[in-house]
Amino acid sequence: MVPRYARPAMTAIWEPESRYRIWFEIEAHATQKLADLGVVPESGAKALWDWWATNPEIDVAAIDAKEAVLKHDVIAFLDWVADEVGPEARFMHQGMTSSDVLDTTLAVQLSRAADILLADLDDLLAAIRRRAEEHKYTPTIGRSHGIHAEPVTFGLKLAQAYAEFDRCKTRLVAAREEIATCAISGAVGTFANIDPSVEAYVAEQLGLSIEPVSTQVIPRDRHAMFFATLAVIAGSIERLAVEVRHLQRTEVLEAEEYFSPGQKGSSAMPHKRNPILTENLTGQARMIRSYAIPALENVALWHERDISHSSVERFIGPDATITLDFALARLTGVVDKLLVYPERMQANLDRMGGLVHSQRVLLALTQAGITRDNAYRLVQRNAMKVWESDGRLSLLDLLKQDEEVTAALSNEELEEKFDLAYHFKHVDTIFDRVFG
Amino acid sequence: MVPRYARPAMTAIWEPESRYRIWFEIEAHATQKLADLGVVPESGAKALWDWWATNPEIDVAAIDAKEAVLKHDVIAFLDWVADEVGPEARFMHQGMTSSDVLDTTLAVQLSRAADILLADLDDLLAAIRRRAEEHKYTPTIGRSHGIHAEPVTFGLKLAQAYAEFDRCKTRLVAAREEIATCAISGAVGTFANIDPSVEAYVAEQLGLSIEPVSTQVIPRDRHAMFFATLAVIAGSIERLAVEVRHLQRTEVLEAEEYFSPGQKGSSAMPHKRNPILTENLTGQARMIRSYAIPALENVALWHERDISHSSVERFIGPDATITLDFALARLTGVVDKLLVYPERMQANLDRMGGLVHSQRVLLALTQAGITRDNAYRLVQRNAMKVWESDGRLSLLDLLKQDEEVTAALSNEELEEKFDLAYHFKHVDTIFDRVFG
Amino acid sequence: MVPRYARPAMTAIWEPESRYRIWFEIEAHATQKLADLGVVPESGAKALWDWWATNPEIDVAAIDAKEAVLKHDVIAFLDWVADEVGPEARFMHQGMTSSDVLDTTLAVQLSRAADILLADLDDLLAAIRRRAEEHKYTPTIGRSHGIHAEPVTFGLKLAQAYAEFDRCKTRLVAAREEIATCAISGAVGTFANIDPSVEAYVAEQLGLSIEPVSTQVIPRDRHAMFFATLAVIAGSIERLAVEVRHLQRTEVLEAEEYFSPGQKGSSAMPHKRNPILTENLTGQARMIRSYAIPALENVALWHERDISHSSVERFIGPDATITLDFALARLTGVVDKLLVYPERMQANLDRMGGLVHSQRVLLALTQAGITRDNAYRLVQRNAMKVWESDGRLSLLDLLKQDEEVTAALSNEELEEKFDLAYHFKHVDTIFDRVFG
Amino acid sequence: MVPRYARPAMTAIWEPESRYRIWFEIEAHATQKLADLGVVPESGAKALWDWWATNPEIDVAAIDAKEAVLKHDVIAFLDWVADEVGPEARFMHQGMTSSDVLDTTLAVQLSRAADILLADLDDLLAAIRRRAEEHKYTPTIGRSHGIHAEPVTFGLKLAQAYAEFDRCKTRLVAAREEIATCAISGAVGTFANIDPSVEAYVAEQLGLSIEPVSTQVIPRDRHAMFFATLAVIAGSIERLAVEVRHLQRTEVLEAEEYFSPGQKGSSAMPHKRNPILTENLTGQARMIRSYAIPALENVALWHERDISHSSVERFIGPDATITLDFALARLTGVVDKLLVYPERMQANLDRMGGLVHSQRVLLALTQAGITRDNAYRLVQRNAMKVWESDGRLSLLDLLKQDEEVTAALSNEELEEKFDLAYHFKHVDTIFDRVFG
Repeated sequence: MVPRYARPAMTAIWEPESRYRIWFEIEAHATQKLADLGVVPESGAKALWDWWATNPEIDVAAIDAKEAVLKHDVIAFLDWVADEVGPEARFMHQGMTSSDVLDTTLAVQLSRAADILLADLDDLLAAIRRRAEEHKYTPTIGRSHGIHAEPVTFGLKLAQAYAEFDRCKTRLVAAREEIATCAISGAVGTFANIDPSVEAYVAEQLGLSIEPVSTQVIPRDRHAMFFATLAVIAGSIERLAVEVRHLQRTEVLEAEEYFSPGQKGSSAMPHKRNPILTENLTGQARMIRSYAIPALENVALWHERDISHSSVERFIGPDATITLDFALARLTGVVDKLLVYPERMQANLDRMGGLVHSQRVLLALTQAGITRDNAYRLVQRNAMKVWESDGRLSLLDLLKQDEEVTAALSNEELEEKFDLAYHFKHVDTIFDRVFG
Repeated sequence: MVPRYARPAMTAIWEPESRYRIWFEIEAHATQKLADLGVVPESGAKALWDWWATNPEIDVAAIDAKEAVLKHDVIAFLDWVADEVGPEARFMHQGMTSSDVLDTTLAVQLSRAADILLADLDDLLAAIRRRAEEHKYTPTIGRSHGIHAEPVTFGLKLAQAYAEFDRCKTRLVAAREEIATCAISGAVGTFANIDPSVEAYVAEQLGLSIEPVSTQVIPRDRHAMFFATLAVIAGSIERLAVEVRHLQRTEVLEAEEYFSPGQKGSSAMPHKRNPILTENLTGQARMIRSYAIPALENVALWHERDISHSSVERFIGPDATITLDFALARLTGVVDKLLVYPERMQANLDRMGGLVHSQRVLLALTQAGITRDNAYRLVQRNAMKVWESDGRLSLLDLLKQDEEVTAALSNEELEEKFDLAYHFKHVDTIFDRVFG
Repeated sequence: MVPRYARPAMTAIWEPESRYRIWFEIEAHATQKLADLGVVPESGAKALWDWWATNPEIDVAAIDAKEAVLKHDVIAFLDWVADEVGPEARFMHQGMTSSDVLDTTLAVQLSRAADILLADLDDLLAAIRRRAEEHKYTPTIGRSHGIHAEPVTFGLKLAQAYAEFDRCKTRLVAAREEIATCAISGAVGTFANIDPSVEAYVAEQLGLSIEPVSTQVIPRDRHAMFFATLAVIAGSIERLAVEVRHLQRTEVLEAEEYFSPGQKGSSAMPHKRNPILTENLTGQARMIRSYAIPALENVALWHERDISHSSVERFIGPDATITLDFALARLTGVVDKLLVYPERMQANLDRMGGLVHSQRVLLALTQAGITRDNAYRLVQRNAMKVWESDGRLSLLDLLKQDEEVTAALSNEELEEKFDLAYHFKHVDTIFDRVFG
Repeated sequence: MVPRYARPAMTAIWEPESRYRIWFEIEAHATQKLADLGVVPESGAKALWDWWATNPEIDVAAIDAKEAVLKHDVIAFLDWVADEVGPEARFMHQGMTSSDVLDTTLAVQLSRAADILLADLDDLLAAIRRRAEEHKYTPTIGRSHGIHAEPVTFGLKLAQAYAEFDRCKTRLVAAREEIATCAISGAVGTFANIDPSVEAYVAEQLGLSIEPVSTQVIPRDRHAMFFATLAVIAGSIERLAVEVRHLQRTEVLEAEEYFSPGQKGSSAMPHKRNPILTENLTGQARMIRSYAIPALENVALWHERDISHSSVERFIGPDATITLDFALARLTGVVDKLLVYPERMQANLDRMGGLVHSQRVLLALTQAGITRDNAYRLVQRNAMKVWESDGRLSLLDLLKQDEEVTAALSNEELEEKFDLAYHFKHVDTIFDRVFG
């Protein structure tokens, strides 16, 4: 976790105190159910909840000090609670194993993290939608291979981004569901010393589903899927970030990240206004993607469990969720405040002497009875002249002077092929598909 | 693709001829719809389908030769079809762009691949279930950290695997749905020269859904999610493979890969019987996982598209699906024919002098009024002696001789704590959860 | 391996016949040394070499058929050789284990592959150097963040690429050395049944060094380092490929991939000339990088060895080297034939109204006694006007009209700050460092 | 960075104060050289060094506050220094760009980090060597595929590890050299406003070499190579960690991580002693490996530079080096204090009824004139009986009863094949190769 790429709400999930609070709730809920079942005295559960009702401070340092001796975090925690609550606390953790607490806690943390990320996605989607509608019909050049292709609208670009992040949301909902399971099944998952109804009770209290078969641990394919899903979202963040970076290039300059008063683009070059937010997002996307690799390697634990996953998760649990939260919020800000330059978009659209309309002419020629191959040749030979003139020549003018072309198409027919609006007749259809 | 790790049905999907057949069908369906719309003459579509009805051979070499000159695969293919069909073929591809064909074809190929993989998963699940039921109550030691923990059954191990691959199936169904979209939207996805109804028609004919907003290409977040899902499945394959490798270790030997007559384990050591299939699967899992990385990097194409994804997909499209198909089938064979040694499982279970029952004694002591910490100390001091004797001493015997223990628990009570059946009382519950 | 991204010389290394030929040579050299040591009869070695001198064809199908029964590739091969050579062949493989043959063979294959790659790098370096010298003083704009910064020369861009690939070469030489080791140490590497001098002899014959301590296998950290090195080279390929892609963008168009007569850029848009080679290279770089992951996971084999590395290497051995060979050759072609447009470079350089000279003015102002902060403010307020005019205003003109500026610097002094040659005075120094 | 996996010396390198101290030194050295060259007044440099001689505290919070407004870290820092030093500070940073400071600082940090890691490797090598010599002739079973193969010594296992980490050291020395370069070349690396001699001077002061051609940034192929090298070291850490985990398995138990008094292996099972340190190392290795991926993606910056690498390096710079430092130290502790059980090694070696000697019998039979295939069959048929008896039968006894065997080999000859010392006759040779 890099503090500058972290926001408080997400960071709080991963702080020791939050973790210990969830540990306590799991232990106390379990003890409650054990009391209901008559396995432990009701006084055991009551003592825990009574203490909890005093809203006690969690003394992280004291717990750490115990762990330094015991070399076992959960035992250290239980010891500390026992110190605070008194002898009734001995009924805690009956028939449970540390992993029951640790894995269920991770499930709660990742679920909460997913909830924040889902809200982030909602904010991002709202921002994209607002700007998409604003620029629904703002003409701009569509580019394939970085080369001018045919006209699109800036709203269409954003509609694509909306659809993509909407898919990301669907995926994250599924990934959240995968991860939100509770395991209270004892040493190797047999429920030998704890009734399955305890698991069901704790799961219900925490808003989780039960893990059908755990083996001391919740199986790590669930986590692999979760982090892989975050990686895919990072890929989509990178895509939109790269789009902005391209649009802000000096020669393109169709849009720019907001540049605040007082901001300096370069210590050496006072004229610079750089797309640093989206470059920054590009790097963050690389990190979030990379965290999927160790998560995938975590799946093949040995036998019922080993603990190699744990050190990995101490990194990627916080790092992936905190960074993705930050990145989504940053991207939302970029979209929200993006400076959009429609005049420049139009200027760029026009700069190639009408080449962007070449396909329509090609189609018209074939429909006029010329073979596709010949039609392609006719258009290409004029297009190449325009290309080499760097847009100073006009494709329409050249075509009007090409006798093989004019034998097939009248001037009026040719002119009609250079109409921009022609390209936008289905924008509405696409917007309907995307925004419903 | 490594031929020895490839099966014919999956491989066939990726052969040039299959690809060209799908290309043709997309083009012909599109032409049909264009004819229905009156954009091209009905004779154009008819000519195509009439030729197709003759079940023509696809001359891959001829198409390749054209591509060598034209440096464009789709144009080369269209030229070849035009050579075969005659002038009516000129109405093909009207208003379409190559990517309409290429991306929709990839969607068809990946969908078909997913169908095979789903069938593979069904086979694997069936094999696991059969063996799980066979060994529902076969006692074996559960291990955490590679160290004996408490008893489980071999059926429970397999139930876990079943649940895990069942989740994989659910994920793959979702990934298949993601990938199964059709885009026929023209040069930069605006439908400028082709009506959206063509896309809808082709999609329906091919069993795909429409891509809500394409930008010449189908967005690559879909593919990233697909290959990430395959990577997760590979992780689960590795987990079960590693389990078998562990069980087959000389010192453990609770199960073995089937060893066929005539097979040689080692050129140098005639006594060897090695878990080579599951080691092989471990390596394949590494490969399948690695293919998710370039798929994730493919998401951020430039503007409406660049073609950097294409070379990646030429590798990972076949390599990931063919290898996963092979791996799933190999794993199914391993499970199906696995030699299971219940006597050895029992012997291993017994070899630690009853240490595996330590927790029950601990719990009984605490329930008899001893503090958890003291109870832990009492059990541990006896357990360590057994441990150091390498199982030659018996925990039960030692406990019976420990006066602090016997002050709390009678011999009869102690003996009851060493009952194996105690651990299996919820096996049925777990099986119900998993197999329903 | 994707056939279209493969060249014959590299591919040949990985063909079964090549592998079997190396196998034979290892076995025959080892048998020769064993004969010299008196362990086996001289007739055993002689029989092998006599047969080899007949230049026998390797019957891959026959060996495969044997493997299908024996399920062991080396034993199958030895059987086949025995069939061909006769009973004297029984002295082959004495005291050796399959891995002695397999791992030493892989060392030979990877060394040969590295030799080809080193030659590829030489070709690339030569091409880059030629173009760098050609454009040593061709002015072009340097860009940071995609935004115009200050002038550089196109030669400098290429000098950077030269220095980078020169480092790649140094790394590959080191990686080749790492991989070029021979192990003939028997079952678990103890030389129990084979004298270390056999290893030394075979190593010398094959141009390898000896593996100081093998454990049946050559340790996989060597291979991990090798494939990681290829991954770094792929990163450098991507960097230069991305540079070309950027330069070819419609709005930039300072350079272009060579576009051959007869080539079609788009099936739909006859005006397109796309940087498809460098996009293709970008995708290939993703693949080559990804192969480092499973190579890294291969290091931690179990105990003296397991065989999980083998399936991985069947993929990445050929795939990484064949693809990198192809990519280097393709990149060499791109550089060699790159169409460079100096006029366009100059036009782009001029398009920002002289903003690229802002730093020199800033420095001059501070040297004239103005605080850095004030100087920055003075330059920035003029620069922003030029920026917003999209280069229609001239920074020099505005500065001449800014009284705070002219209070510090005369018109003559200001004009001197806009001299392009000023930026190139150390080009020679840099070229000396790089090409020296 | 996870605090529990961090050690102070390495962590200190990455703290803001350390970074700012290096920044200052770079700026002050550069100013000194500029003063020597007469570009700035000597008083400028003197003012900086005089202030520095007062050993001033770095006010990180004040600098952060400035950055929050200026959104540029280097400018914020320069402003703060100017506040502290006074107007003479305006001569700092003349002709430099932020990246000159940032990239050279990263070079210093990574070099220092590499120095710590090299010292870590020395400690690890010393520990491995000590234990290797201690157990040079401790017999243990060598295992391939997890299956007993032939005898080795525990010292040989450690000799292999020594050789592997010795290679890692060589690689890290090379990687350190790659990364230790200084760039003070101005806005786009042309030295337009700063003489190359400044770079040379600063490089010398900081113990770096000069970057032959920088483009505002030091090229990221260097960093990719550095982090890839750390990833390879992580792979070797995982290998040794996995070896220990295997050796500690209940059924194997040939060695154990040191288990301190007061330590609890499991909250639920008092008998557990788990290899948690090496499992922990396994997870850390996954993380360190994963950091190579974004480092590789960082290479292809746009044009002369973009800043996408920066957010990546804020993560992986500290995370990879801190975690690797911790992991190497932890592994050193594991090796140093490893509990080794030679009796158990001998017991395991004996448990297969002499199967581990099967190869010697095979060789003896072939040398006695039996074809390899027949000899294999003879040994295998007896070996399989021993195998199936789980070591209760003795291979030697069975062979003595096999008439086809005894027709070729006398009892005395057979017995000689079961001599353990035979396997260790070259241990000395191998130790000489490794430890020299």
